[in-house]
Amino acid sequence: MTNERYKRGWDKLMQIDGEGGERVIESLKEIAPDLGTYIVEFAFGDIYSRDTLDARQRQLITLAALTAQGGCEPQLGVHINASLNVGLTPREVVEAIMHCVPYVGFPKVLNAISVAKDVIAKRGVSAKQESCGP
Amino acid sequence: MTNERYKRGWDKLMQIDGEGGERVIESLKEIAPDLGTYIVEFAFGDIYSRDTLDARQRQLITLAALTAQGGCEPQLGVHINASLNVGLTPREVVEAIMHCVPYVGFPKVLNAISVAKDVIAKRGVSAKQESCGP
Amino acid sequence: MTNERYKRGWDKLMQIDGEGGERVIESLKEIAPDLGTYIVEFAFGDIYSRDTLDARQRQLITLAALTAQGGCEPQLGVHINASLNVGLTPREVVEAIMHCVPYVGFPKVLNAISVAKDVIAKRGVSAKQESCGP
Amino acid sequence: MTNERYKRGWDKLMQIDGEGGERVIESLKEIAPDLGTYIVEFAFGDIYSRDTLDARQRQLITLAALTAQGGCEPQLGVHINASLNVGLTPREVVEAIMHCVPYVGFPKVLNAISVAKDVIAKRGVSAKQESCGP
Amino acid sequence: MTNERYKRGWDKLMQIDGEGGERVIESLKEIAPDLGTYIVEFAFGDIYSRDTLDARQRQLITLAALTAQGGCEPQLGVHINASLNVGLTPREVVEAIMHCVPYVGFPKVLNAISVAKDVIAKRGVSAKQESCGP
Amino acid sequence: MTNERYKRGWDKLMQIDGEGGERVIESLKEIAPDLGTYIVEFAFGDIYSRDTLDARQRQLITLAALTAQGGCEPQLGVHINASLNVGLTPREVVEAIMHCVPYVGFPKVLNAISVAKDVIAKRGVSAKQESCGP
Repeated sequence: MTNERYKRGWDKLMQIDGEGGERVIESLKEIAPDLGTYIVEFAFGDIYSRDTLDARQRQLITLAALTAQGGCEPQLGVHINASLNVGLTPREVVEAIMHCVPYVGFPKVLNAISVAKDVIAKRGVSAKQESCGP
Repeated sequence: MTNERYKRGWDKLMQIDGEGGERVIESLKEIAPDLGTYIVEFAFGDIYSRDTLDARQRQLITLAALTAQGGCEPQLGVHINASLNVGLTPREVVEAIMHCVPYVGFPKVLNAISVAKDVIAKRGVSAKQESCGP
Repeated sequence: MTNERYKRGWDKLMQIDGEGGERVIESLKEIAPDLGTYIVEFAFGDIYSRDTLDARQRQLITLAALTAQGGCEPQLGVHINASLNVGLTPREVVEAIMHCVPYVGFPKVLNAISVAKDVIAKRGVSAKQESCGP
Repeated sequence: MTNERYKRGWDKLMQIDGEGGERVIESLKEIAPDLGTYIVEFAFGDIYSRDTLDARQRQLITLAALTAQGGCEPQLGVHINASLNVGLTPREVVEAIMHCVPYVGFPKVLNAISVAKDVIAKRGVSAKQESCGP
Repeated sequence: MTNERYKRGWDKLMQIDGEGGERVIESLKEIAPDLGTYIVEFAFGDIYSRDTLDARQRQLITLAALTAQGGCEPQLGVHINASLNVGLTPREVVEAIMHCVPYVGFPKVLNAISVAKDVIAKRGVSAKQESCGP
Repeated sequence: MTNERYKRGWDKLMQIDGEGGERVIESLKEIAPDLGTYIVEFAFGDIYSRDTLDARQRQLITLAALTAQGGCEPQLGVHINASLNVGLTPREVVEAIMHCVPYVGFPKVLNAISVAKDVIAKRGVSAKQESCGP
């Protein structure tokens, strides 16, 4: 049964985070393998596998939680990739981070945008916003 | 023109936060009226009036940013109401907050859920989740 | 099997947090019952049930994490009670919170001490430190 | 010598925080008297007694650090009083808090302004800003 | 009019942050140009252009808000330069950061001091404090 | 007497942090020597020299406070070394950080574990956990 949660979580992790997620679990093998197991079982097997919100909505929430928290640049990298994997466009990812400005201020948003810039450049996609404010 | 941003922001504030937003601006009248102006002009006239993400997506992001930040219970109250105003269901609001657990831990999520419980009770709607985890 | 994790978690929750923990789970019944289930299964059935560190060591860590995070006064209340339940003395609880001053500053420590004062008073025990600095 | 640091700190505490500071130290008497001693000796005897910045500059810094940190409403109350005690005007206090918006976002600033509103009202002084933005 | 706010903000940005600020706006050109516009218009055109506090007082507040928030090392770099640009001495910058210790603890202060050390070294100025505590 | 606190603090710093601590103090010599003095006198001479909790318990608390705070990777490096110096095993260090997951979420824990991995590798000790969850 633990196996069922793990399997469901692993499938979800692969579908959402892909390689980036696999690398996180892999990096924990030597130092804290159970932590990797909990990420798979709890974060992905329990939480991400729930219904009510779809994968794109969940990624918007994740981007905001990581941006607001600060100091989570490596995790933002994984989840900006994940956001693009589940079908958010680069512009939507950038917009989601920008929406946080009134709530967390410019510095945390600048840090998150800087990660987005790198991720998007590596994927070779364009997020250039035409000035689309009102 | 400042007037145009203000007007656009005020309409947006009314549409999203409604009374709760008006009370915030009102409460600043005596002590820091310009702060209220900036909330209307910048947060609502500039940021919330942008396209690329719709009102419901923006509220999911706002809920996550406030939950992740901690100590923002009064603002969570306003924005849980706002989330319901723009058409998120009580279950979606609760689910959005719960999705933050792997990113911010249980205590901040419990604090946000406690606000949601009060807001939803006052509005007389039911958010009861049937156990809907996988 | 989920049942096994839940059962193990519930026993652990009862043993550590006692009534305070039960009230938290109970308060989630109407609004987010699955969140209560995750607290029991994951926080207590998985994490608290691990070996390597005993219950008293885990409570010291919990007290520090909650003090450092800020804004977690309700959870500190539960876990100061839990700390006393597993055999930490009131003086050890206060000392653990005070040890955080160099890392998080006085304000968060003062907020946590204020919770400790209330909890200890309600339990009718004395935490009075004789001045025990060097 | 500890006595000298304590005496210097106590005089500084009285001069800056006045009654509010005394109440904090007093409230620690039963639960953690040494914590009160460290506040007097280290925060006030060492840090606040340094030169290079004057009392008003130090209060601006304190207000920003407490606003940015979040969840420090009780300490903000003490230090908004302290700011007025050392000669900052209510308008300067409000302005200092408002200056934090681009760095920490609106919610933390709103929480701090709310404390300022109460403190200033209790002292019976007016902080009403004429709209003084450019 | 947006143009007026932008122009006023740009002049203020140049006067305070200089090259460092320009580089931030420039770095956003491809990924999120509107974010750069908001920094110019809102942070500098609205907030920094207000009266009641002068440029040096505003920088003290900014340094404290960034130090307290943590994880804002790139922004601290820009604003330590800005602080020196508007006439704060290296010793005053270091002192402002040190004043935060009682409120945020040593780690965040050490991180900020480390940025200050680099910035000051690059500008070729000396911030060496003679031991100036009481 | 300051000398006595300094001496006691220095001995404690050497005993706990060893070289890592000395490097921190050394790095402050040019930019903020008094900050180094306060770390020695207050953090180590006052706080770490108190009784009621032993060195290992204090390190568990320090690890949790630094993990929970986020953005304190350099200080975590010093204190993971310190934890091993006072007799915590690599497995206990990793376990202490993992215990924080329910309170602060996975990202901060992953960042702290990543530091632990580096420190432990440099010391040439093994922290490999056998899967030891229940």
